[in-house]
Amino acid sequence: MIRFDCDYTEGAHPKILEKLSMTNYEQTIGYGEDNYCKEAERIIKEKCGRQDIDVHFLVGGTQTNLTVIAAALRPYQGAIAATTGHINVHETGAIEATGHKVLALNSSNGKLTANQIQDAYDTHFNDPSAEHMVQPKLVYISNPTEIGTIYSKAELTALSQTCKKNNLILYMDGARLGYGLCAEDNDLDLQTIGKLCDAFYIGGTKIGALFGEAVVISNEALKEDFRYLIKQKGGMLAKGRLLGIQFSTLFEDNLYFKMSKHADEMSMLIKKALIEKGYPFLIESSTNQQFPIMPDTVLEKLGKNYVYSYWQRIDGIHSAVRFCTSWATKEENVIKLVESIKSI
Amino acid sequence: MIRFDCDYTEGAHPKILEKLSMTNYEQTIGYGEDNYCKEAERIIKEKCGRQDIDVHFLVGGTQTNLTVIAAALRPYQGAIAATTGHINVHETGAIEATGHKVLALNSSNGKLTANQIQDAYDTHFNDPSAEHMVQPKLVYISNPTEIGTIYSKAELTALSQTCKKNNLILYMDGARLGYGLCAEDNDLDLQTIGKLCDAFYIGGTKIGALFGEAVVISNEALKEDFRYLIKQKGGMLAKGRLLGIQFSTLFEDNLYFKMSKHADEMSMLIKKALIEKGYPFLIESSTNQQFPIMPDTVLEKLGKNYVYSYWQRIDGIHSAVRFCTSWATKEENVIKLVESIKSI
Amino acid sequence: MIRFDCDYTEGAHPKILEKLSMTNYEQTIGYGEDNYCKEAERIIKEKCGRQDIDVHFLVGGTQTNLTVIAAALRPYQGAIAATTGHINVHETGAIEATGHKVLALNSSNGKLTANQIQDAYDTHFNDPSAEHMVQPKLVYISNPTEIGTIYSKAELTALSQTCKKNNLILYMDGARLGYGLCAEDNDLDLQTIGKLCDAFYIGGTKIGALFGEAVVISNEALKEDFRYLIKQKGGMLAKGRLLGIQFSTLFEDNLYFKMSKHADEMSMLIKKALIEKGYPFLIESSTNQQFPIMPDTVLEKLGKNYVYSYWQRIDGIHSAVRFCTSWATKEENVIKLVESIKSI
Amino acid sequence: MIRFDCDYTEGAHPKILEKLSMTNYEQTIGYGEDNYCKEAERIIKEKCGRQDIDVHFLVGGTQTNLTVIAAALRPYQGAIAATTGHINVHETGAIEATGHKVLALNSSNGKLTANQIQDAYDTHFNDPSAEHMVQPKLVYISNPTEIGTIYSKAELTALSQTCKKNNLILYMDGARLGYGLCAEDNDLDLQTIGKLCDAFYIGGTKIGALFGEAVVISNEALKEDFRYLIKQKGGMLAKGRLLGIQFSTLFEDNLYFKMSKHADEMSMLIKKALIEKGYPFLIESSTNQQFPIMPDTVLEKLGKNYVYSYWQRIDGIHSAVRFCTSWATKEENVIKLVESIKSI
Repeated sequence: MIRFDCDYTEGAHPKILEKLSMTNYEQTIGYGEDNYCKEAERIIKEKCGRQDIDVHFLVGGTQTNLTVIAAALRPYQGAIAATTGHINVHETGAIEATGHKVLALNSSNGKLTANQIQDAYDTHFNDPSAEHMVQPKLVYISNPTEIGTIYSKAELTALSQTCKKNNLILYMDGARLGYGLCAEDNDLDLQTIGKLCDAFYIGGTKIGALFGEAVVISNEALKEDFRYLIKQKGGMLAKGRLLGIQFSTLFEDNLYFKMSKHADEMSMLIKKALIEKGYPFLIESSTNQQFPIMPDTVLEKLGKNYVYSYWQRIDGIHSAVRFCTSWATKEENVIKLVESIKSI
Repeated sequence: MIRFDCDYTEGAHPKILEKLSMTNYEQTIGYGEDNYCKEAERIIKEKCGRQDIDVHFLVGGTQTNLTVIAAALRPYQGAIAATTGHINVHETGAIEATGHKVLALNSSNGKLTANQIQDAYDTHFNDPSAEHMVQPKLVYISNPTEIGTIYSKAELTALSQTCKKNNLILYMDGARLGYGLCAEDNDLDLQTIGKLCDAFYIGGTKIGALFGEAVVISNEALKEDFRYLIKQKGGMLAKGRLLGIQFSTLFEDNLYFKMSKHADEMSMLIKKALIEKGYPFLIESSTNQQFPIMPDTVLEKLGKNYVYSYWQRIDGIHSAVRFCTSWATKEENVIKLVESIKSI
Repeated sequence: MIRFDCDYTEGAHPKILEKLSMTNYEQTIGYGEDNYCKEAERIIKEKCGRQDIDVHFLVGGTQTNLTVIAAALRPYQGAIAATTGHINVHETGAIEATGHKVLALNSSNGKLTANQIQDAYDTHFNDPSAEHMVQPKLVYISNPTEIGTIYSKAELTALSQTCKKNNLILYMDGARLGYGLCAEDNDLDLQTIGKLCDAFYIGGTKIGALFGEAVVISNEALKEDFRYLIKQKGGMLAKGRLLGIQFSTLFEDNLYFKMSKHADEMSMLIKKALIEKGYPFLIESSTNQQFPIMPDTVLEKLGKNYVYSYWQRIDGIHSAVRFCTSWATKEENVIKLVESIKSI
Repeated sequence: MIRFDCDYTEGAHPKILEKLSMTNYEQTIGYGEDNYCKEAERIIKEKCGRQDIDVHFLVGGTQTNLTVIAAALRPYQGAIAATTGHINVHETGAIEATGHKVLALNSSNGKLTANQIQDAYDTHFNDPSAEHMVQPKLVYISNPTEIGTIYSKAELTALSQTCKKNNLILYMDGARLGYGLCAEDNDLDLQTIGKLCDAFYIGGTKIGALFGEAVVISNEALKEDFRYLIKQKGGMLAKGRLLGIQFSTLFEDNLYFKMSKHADEMSMLIKKALIEKGYPFLIESSTNQQFPIMPDTVLEKLGKNYVYSYWQRIDGIHSAVRFCTSWATKEENVIKLVESIKSI
């Protein structure tokens, strides 16, 4: 069986394992205050083109989201997200467990628009009973989204301006950030994201690391005492250097982007094969996830050799599924899959 | 500088890194449902001598404590702990952040006694205003404690009986469990702990793993839906196999205990040197942490070559400090330290 | 100006004020353990036709909802509610502040159906990633709903059976319960509700009391230590007798139902006038709230003498508004309003 | 039986009941935005001698404490309190339920000193592991304390200066504020308290109201969106005017202080009798609570006609108990008690 069900089926890029082995017996202080973390921080600041940001390393995505959001909100405030947003569906209520409502807005493509945010803001603050409702304060977006779409520079700029205008915090979940930044139609980069968002994270878990997410914070209010929150929420790794080592390796020689580009290219091969076969898509995606709608009979056959993610039922005989590539996807396996699709 | 300040200054036992490398390109499902986790679970059940326990793997200690305690308590219930208990002092209020008070009891040696628990229980339930106070429900102990002491079988049995009698949950934080079980004066083992506690965890972070703690649950009520809580609290590792691989490696060939024994032996060498030199101790410890009380002038000298943890001021010219060994402590470094102590 | 904007514009039924004055200098113990609370409890048990229920008195609705829901759920569980449900919109995230997600289901009439619940349950538990999502555990309904509709006995029975079958807790918010039970088309009563729901509350604030809600619990698990939770959540009134006195007065001589019936009758007079004038309604209601859709020009005129609640914009020249009657609504004022409507 | 066990055994001052009756059929808007609340706010601002404060009315003390503290703290911050502080013992963990640790400091007289606060602050911020511990941010004091003692102007000034210097928030729980301000040895007043504290509340429940506490906030950061929090925490009374009516009545003609003075005088009569009889006191108190230490045999006799609060066991044959007076205490009953004490 070849797995295309998600982007965390393998371990880490071998350079990371190598570096972990090489440094294994060095003695360092704990909790992310070692030199490897400092070095990773230095490189990320450089990539973001500025020094006035804070960089923190956490273990996983849910942990990162709940920590940032807990840092950002007062108790009666909530986080706006698309209904498909990870925090709204797939974190077992982690945000609510910190006391905050996720204010879910409908979205057909996983993205939020500046207009939606302005509307939600106006609706709340124009209501004479505003105090009886959760106050929107943070806007959570994912890029790429959970369904593979990406924000354009224009879209993100509009969102950012709307947030700034209304004193809202803009936070980007970048669990798959590399796969977004390396998409053919992408026009964003780390510098721009750092400028437009109050905080975002660069996902490592799904892009070549064993685990780890690098949070970048530019908003001063969010910076304050952030490490207290990391510790309280259980996200402060004792051997913090493991994160520093991983992220400095990922960002040396642009390894992170090389791996991301590879995954996107593999995804495009699959996409092309599906298009040629005439399958429609649940959503158009230029990143490492493809969501074709296929006959159940075909899926059953493919399922004998390939693992995909079942996404949703479309009708009595069709389903949408997800094929997912990653930094670790072998081209030979993609070619096999493409052949199988062609030969159906 | 040679570090004796804590037990997480190095990476992991080389066998773990080896195994991670070997398995790196295998494709597995995520979130701890892979075969490596199943294998680690199998071995731990075997070591505990029973099948009717649940085993879960989490990343770190604070995360583990807050997840277990959140699983165990209703909103108005609290966790009894020694004032020195990790949850009471060094987790940035992680337990309170899940809504629960830590009910701290004084203890001169870091341990709780059955009598203390019975008293706390009686005091609460005999009070006509009990409803106005936090109800004690879980008893948190650490073994070894934060100051290196260990529970005897008799003490733990008494605690366990008191808890069962009063329908309290007994939970053991085993961040350094191996160092306790391998102490010369220890008479506990995994089977006994599994029988006497409702839940406990076997610490990996401080004993040879890169990171990771294995939670063992025997109490049926605590077992229910525990994975939901791991996910919600941010502790569910996407590449869960990293934990499975580490714990199956740790428990093959008793590696965990061999490493623990080594650390304790190294600690005893330091202890012996300190005793011979006539230094008193803040607390008698047979595990990997030693807390001598030493003149500040001596400490200053030692501090030029060795890193220790400053613990507390004793008087104008003496302080208590901590020397900590671990699985990774090199005998040659301990010999150097011993020589330095002798030659003061 | 005559207010028809809500059902808490006046104080309390004069009998309540009388009784408060009469008993003012009696000395009683606090926190709801006095004889007036016991008496009110006795009467409510009688009205519910059973002794095996617990009755508690709290100050207000939000407080009651958050306390019951906190008592019912483990941290990863959520409360299903209609999108219009009070807990989903008008409690400033009180439920989320206790750590729980409100799982909102669409509803055109403010009510939930047994099928919706079964679907939500199946969708969750059939999902292989269920652990990554909030587990539905409690079903929150309001009767009458926030938009004036009521559940029939058949509907509530179906809901109850679905909940019991799936081990879900059924909880009814009865902020306006009397107005529902006295509606012309109602076929429910306290006994039936007590049998079909795990918990519900009888609203006093909106029906003749100064304040106060009586929670009735039949589910054994919910009963346990409920008073601890009342105290923790700030809902335990020091002079608890104020609630006992109010509820025993409300349920003597069926005062509660007499007042409710009056409000419904007043509402029907308004409804009839609106129908005769040909105004459509946002929703058909037989209780004390009416939601006509009217031209903005007409509303502006009415607004000079009457206060109504603005509900929502329908189109460029029409809006839905709410006219609300209560136990205190004077017939003469309703007649004036009816005349004004007629004469438009 | 004559009750001296607490200060909420009766209803309310008759003027309050009168005013409630008189205004009963007036129609007002809800949630504290009516004219009675505005009037009460006006008077309280006048009594505090300034306009730049916010005044809010809540139902009870626990609710008030948890709402203010939730408003003041970020998630990793805690509230310093004396071990005897109400929030530390008698609120069923209400503060922890909002996520915050109570940092309890020992105190022999229920009061905190400026030095203690400075020490706690320094201890935290000088610790290299500060991030692993709860950050002290708010200082909770009660005046009078739970054991009847009061702060002098000098003590409160010192506390206030220490807090300001260290950017800590000073909050005073004034559940019995009147009884403190009317004590013979008191040198504080509302103006001074308003200047020295960031927030405090004027207790109504225990001093003549049916219920209700008036929160006064001078700190700008605390003012922001405070009503959202009142609503979320379940403390926003629908018929908010009930609070406005009560507080405007309490502060007309200094009724609040007249009632308080009466209670203190009654307390002094009891104190004098106890002193004359030679009983020692657990603590010296000039307010409405007296804590004599008496032989159990004597207490048993007194217990036949009087209800007191059992406080704590002193030795095998002595106990400390509490005699509590209030605005409603009848002089004739005090005389009876004094006679009984004398005749033992």
